[in-house]
Amino acid sequence: MNIRSNPEKTIPAVTTGPLPSSRKIFASPEAAPDVGVPLREIILSEGAGEPNLPVYDTSGPYTDPSVTIDVNAGLSRNRKAWVLERGGVEEYDGRAIKPEDNGGVSAEKAARAFSAYHQPLRGLDGHKITQLEFARAGIITKEMIYVAERENLGRKQQLERAEQALADGESFGAAVPAFITPEFVRSEIARGRAIIPSNINHSELEPMIIGRNFLTKINANIGNSAVTSSVEEEVEKMVWAIRWGADTVMDLSTGRNIHTTREWILRNSPVPIGTVPIYQALEKCNGDPVQLTWELYKDTLIEQCEQGVDYFTIHAGVRLQYIHLTAGRVTGIVSRGGSIMAKWCLAHHKESFLYTHFDEICDIMRKYDVSFSLGDGLRPGSIADANDRAQFAELETLGELTKIAWDKGCQVMIEGPGHVPMHKIKINMDKQLKECGEAPFYTLGPLTTDIAPGYDHITSGIGAAMIGWFGCAMLCYVTPKEHLGLPDRNDVKTGVITYKIAAHAADLAKGHPAAQLRDDALSRARFDFRWTDQFNLGLDPDTAKSFHDETLPKEAHKVAHFCSMCGPKFCSMKITQDVRDYAATLNDPNNVGMSMAGTIEDGMAKMSEKFKEMGSNVYLDAEKVKESNRAL
Amino acid sequence: MNIRSNPEKTIPAVTTGPLPSSRKIFASPEAAPDVGVPLREIILSEGAGEPNLPVYDTSGPYTDPSVTIDVNAGLSRNRKAWVLERGGVEEYDGRAIKPEDNGGVSAEKAARAFSAYHQPLRGLDGHKITQLEFARAGIITKEMIYVAERENLGRKQQLERAEQALADGESFGAAVPAFITPEFVRSEIARGRAIIPSNINHSELEPMIIGRNFLTKINANIGNSAVTSSVEEEVEKMVWAIRWGADTVMDLSTGRNIHTTREWILRNSPVPIGTVPIYQALEKCNGDPVQLTWELYKDTLIEQCEQGVDYFTIHAGVRLQYIHLTAGRVTGIVSRGGSIMAKWCLAHHKESFLYTHFDEICDIMRKYDVSFSLGDGLRPGSIADANDRAQFAELETLGELTKIAWDKGCQVMIEGPGHVPMHKIKINMDKQLKECGEAPFYTLGPLTTDIAPGYDHITSGIGAAMIGWFGCAMLCYVTPKEHLGLPDRNDVKTGVITYKIAAHAADLAKGHPAAQLRDDALSRARFDFRWTDQFNLGLDPDTAKSFHDETLPKEAHKVAHFCSMCGPKFCSMKITQDVRDYAATLNDPNNVGMSMAGTIEDGMAKMSEKFKEMGSNVYLDAEKVKESNRAL
Repeated sequence: MNIRSNPEKTIPAVTTGPLPSSRKIFASPEAAPDVGVPLREIILSEGAGEPNLPVYDTSGPYTDPSVTIDVNAGLSRNRKAWVLERGGVEEYDGRAIKPEDNGGVSAEKAARAFSAYHQPLRGLDGHKITQLEFARAGIITKEMIYVAERENLGRKQQLERAEQALADGESFGAAVPAFITPEFVRSEIARGRAIIPSNINHSELEPMIIGRNFLTKINANIGNSAVTSSVEEEVEKMVWAIRWGADTVMDLSTGRNIHTTREWILRNSPVPIGTVPIYQALEKCNGDPVQLTWELYKDTLIEQCEQGVDYFTIHAGVRLQYIHLTAGRVTGIVSRGGSIMAKWCLAHHKESFLYTHFDEICDIMRKYDVSFSLGDGLRPGSIADANDRAQFAELETLGELTKIAWDKGCQVMIEGPGHVPMHKIKINMDKQLKECGEAPFYTLGPLTTDIAPGYDHITSGIGAAMIGWFGCAMLCYVTPKEHLGLPDRNDVKTGVITYKIAAHAADLAKGHPAAQLRDDALSRARFDFRWTDQFNLGLDPDTAKSFHDETLPKEAHKVAHFCSMCGPKFCSMKITQDVRDYAATLNDPNNVGMSMAGTIEDGMAKMSEKFKEMGSNVYLDAEKVKESNRAL
Repeated sequence: MNIRSNPEKTIPAVTTGPLPSSRKIFASPEAAPDVGVPLREIILSEGAGEPNLPVYDTSGPYTDPSVTIDVNAGLSRNRKAWVLERGGVEEYDGRAIKPEDNGGVSAEKAARAFSAYHQPLRGLDGHKITQLEFARAGIITKEMIYVAERENLGRKQQLERAEQALADGESFGAAVPAFITPEFVRSEIARGRAIIPSNINHSELEPMIIGRNFLTKINANIGNSAVTSSVEEEVEKMVWAIRWGADTVMDLSTGRNIHTTREWILRNSPVPIGTVPIYQALEKCNGDPVQLTWELYKDTLIEQCEQGVDYFTIHAGVRLQYIHLTAGRVTGIVSRGGSIMAKWCLAHHKESFLYTHFDEICDIMRKYDVSFSLGDGLRPGSIADANDRAQFAELETLGELTKIAWDKGCQVMIEGPGHVPMHKIKINMDKQLKECGEAPFYTLGPLTTDIAPGYDHITSGIGAAMIGWFGCAMLCYVTPKEHLGLPDRNDVKTGVITYKIAAHAADLAKGHPAAQLRDDALSRARFDFRWTDQFNLGLDPDTAKSFHDETLPKEAHKVAHFCSMCGPKFCSMKITQDVRDYAATLNDPNNVGMSMAGTIEDGMAKMSEKFKEMGSNVYLDAEKVKESNRAL
């Protein structure tokens, strides 16, 4: 890890450099050889006896030593050419930035503006703009080629050398193919089962796909609140989150400097950025939900479309008639956007303007290919409120809105709960698939109990793994600080790693054809006592190594055939290897099983000698080993 | 928390004092009013508007300020009277302690011996000794009365005041009653579906029950290895583990001082202690598995029976004919005991002496009522090896041994994996119930992926929650240090809290009739902004409070209607309460729902006024709130 600190180049400073023993490699898809699709190759130790392991890489150019990172300039805008070459868009003078975009922040408290200005693009009438429109027309975009390669590459390479058959698994009706073709990507997008969130103005993007027939994805939330944090911290949190594996990032900033913070994040983000536009709209009317108007909201949508936000959470399912359904709840409405809209609806006694203007919202978002993330404003905030009528009434409305958005040509995913005990999770997934026509589901957790504040990454990681298995396409992380405060850098990392575990466990259980190869590589390293390989193949090599080194810090321990957990004499893997070494001395290595008896009897003398020898050489006196460890 | 440090009284020093805002209370069962069953009462803040919450308490006298803890003397031996009063036992001169019991440790490296000596008890021929024997004879022991009250009390109190019906849930065939009677406990033990691990020589014990129709339990492993840690550390780890909720503790010590370490732990433990006797037996033959003999093992069993160990892990299912089934595995045999026995079997080309002498083992254990924990020596150590023939062949043998042990009058539980992807977990539970006649299952995790060393409390917490839901009776924790080193005090706490989450999530999903009451109490505290109650109702009040206080440390923030996560303006719970406050002003509080429209219209003017007022008073300017927070 290498934190650059040249103040001229890198304000804010961000974390750069490859992960331990890793290098960035690029694959060239057959269908578009000029497109470089990044992967991380984990380099195994000499003598590992197996190839390096390529893994999916969300970290962008920050982990590529050949790229000079200049946060002031932003990342390369390579994708702009892709958008321009397919046509149907125009550059135009975007909406002027107004003081209220940053909450009317005073000059002295204003964050430094992002220096480079990029004229926005928008779609022209009568042209295809969104990935959904292209997909339906049978056109494979570069984004589709890119994500196919990205999902597929490790799988292709690995399966070629894998001895084992495709993984078993229970996919609950998902249809994960052995290989992903660009045509498969197109077909999944065309039928609404997957999205590539990719605003035509987010030219820095490395495209990714969200859908239940692809790898399970995770989202990390960042963003300052009125009480704490700064622009610098938020940009670094974004870089830090993608370093550990966040597939998308939501900027949930509120308070001042909201436009400027988002601009810094977008210009430096290789992953899709999502927002909740109502937060900024609320800032524009001094935080009073009652003062919100459609015009003010629409203006905010256009502002964020022009900046390049890839998906918007829109709580258009919080209808006036559902609000009373929350009256008996233990925790009422826990979605920020949901509670704002509920208050607006009651105050004006009107249907939500997000619902009544949904057609217009679609028209705006289509012009920039901003994907919908239809928000669950009435999600349960406690175990007691899970799966109640308020929640499911809203979900039904989200299904209705999904079809409208699809008719308008927009990509759609659906947000889900929340707090749900284990036995009530699957019905959430099943009902979402049914109501929303298999549009990708994107859930927060769910938390499987309310009783562990400070550990809600774990209470929710359990639910996330399960709903991912059942078919959820993207899991929104929860950090240890949930319910207690704004997550810091450490919390972001803990949240991301926890959710990478949940997503990977889900992929394994679904029977993803290549997911297990990383488990197998790590387990082989473990069994072979290749400690460094074991650390590096894990999700967090730094933490694994530091835990190991607490008790056995010396370099020589990295090849030791034991660890401090059991010590040398009780290491089962060591003993197993002794047993296997012995088995290898038998005349016929295939002659095991029920016929082993005879073979072993033939080799008794030899074996007896061998084990006596091992008894003195391998199973050392524990105290002596303790001494020798110190001497290592 | 209060660490006593009087060197004369409390070597080793242990953590004492109640948890935050908690007090120890005792219930008196109707059937035995002289028996005091401990509970922890969580005291809510004034104005909470609801009663204090009693919760299950594993912490023993260490959290009772009225008890003076003297680790040198050990805990009170109250249970001895129970054993003596039912008769059928004799005091006798126990086996003399031999140098090899402590691995032949030299005088200078020997740990200080535990000072008090207690003459052991053993059962007399022709008398009932074990809980199973009493249960079958229709006799309800004090232990059964105790655990009934312990399981039931909170439930009884809480259900009396709960408005809601019994929880829903999916129990997969478990039969959890609304109330637990001593007779129900007896019947569950009689049919082998539950055990009370309770060596007649562990007089310090506060009895607990393990079975799928009771609360899901968790075990914490402690114990030094040859490489690190000391007697002092291990006793404190035990006290620390039960403070946070460990229901049983396994002492997995190896190396020197093994007898002495165990004696200190047992004499100070209010929870059942489990061990793996083969570890000590191996120390007695200098760590060479080939030198192990039945006589040496038998001597070790008796030694530990006399000390008061409550359950023994015995890997009697690792049969000679199964060993070759592990030959193609990625990680071979990963159980320490399993690998030791495999080596012995191969070296001698004989059936395991644990299997051939199983009858005699039963006879010994029955005399002291030591429960079997039939070990899974061939459990999978990687995702690749899950549910293979080696694993299931052993499980079938464990089923055969269960029936033998039952016939001998012994209590039995069965150990389970290990590393298992989510879709292969349920078959483990189903097969165990079938093969082992519903004897309680006790699993290590399982870990649902191999790729996250350093986070295996989480990879396994997912699997533990699921298998607990499916019917597993006790979950053996995994700490963040798994695979990497010996857990320290922090790791023990993290492991325990993670597994309390898994066990509680399982109870909720099974439909345990009272489990959700704690979730509800905490969620109400959260919704009411009773921050201190929220912390105290959680599994780890200290961590929750410290996370909150990182950004909002002042006492005044403990009643603030927001936290730093969203800030005051975006707090959904605050907004919801505003909405409800408004609703309360309507003429007819029952007149909500589809008829709300009319009511609201009637009250429009009032509402409009109210929200305008709230707009200025509640939704303050964010910067101003920031300032006012600092002033608090």
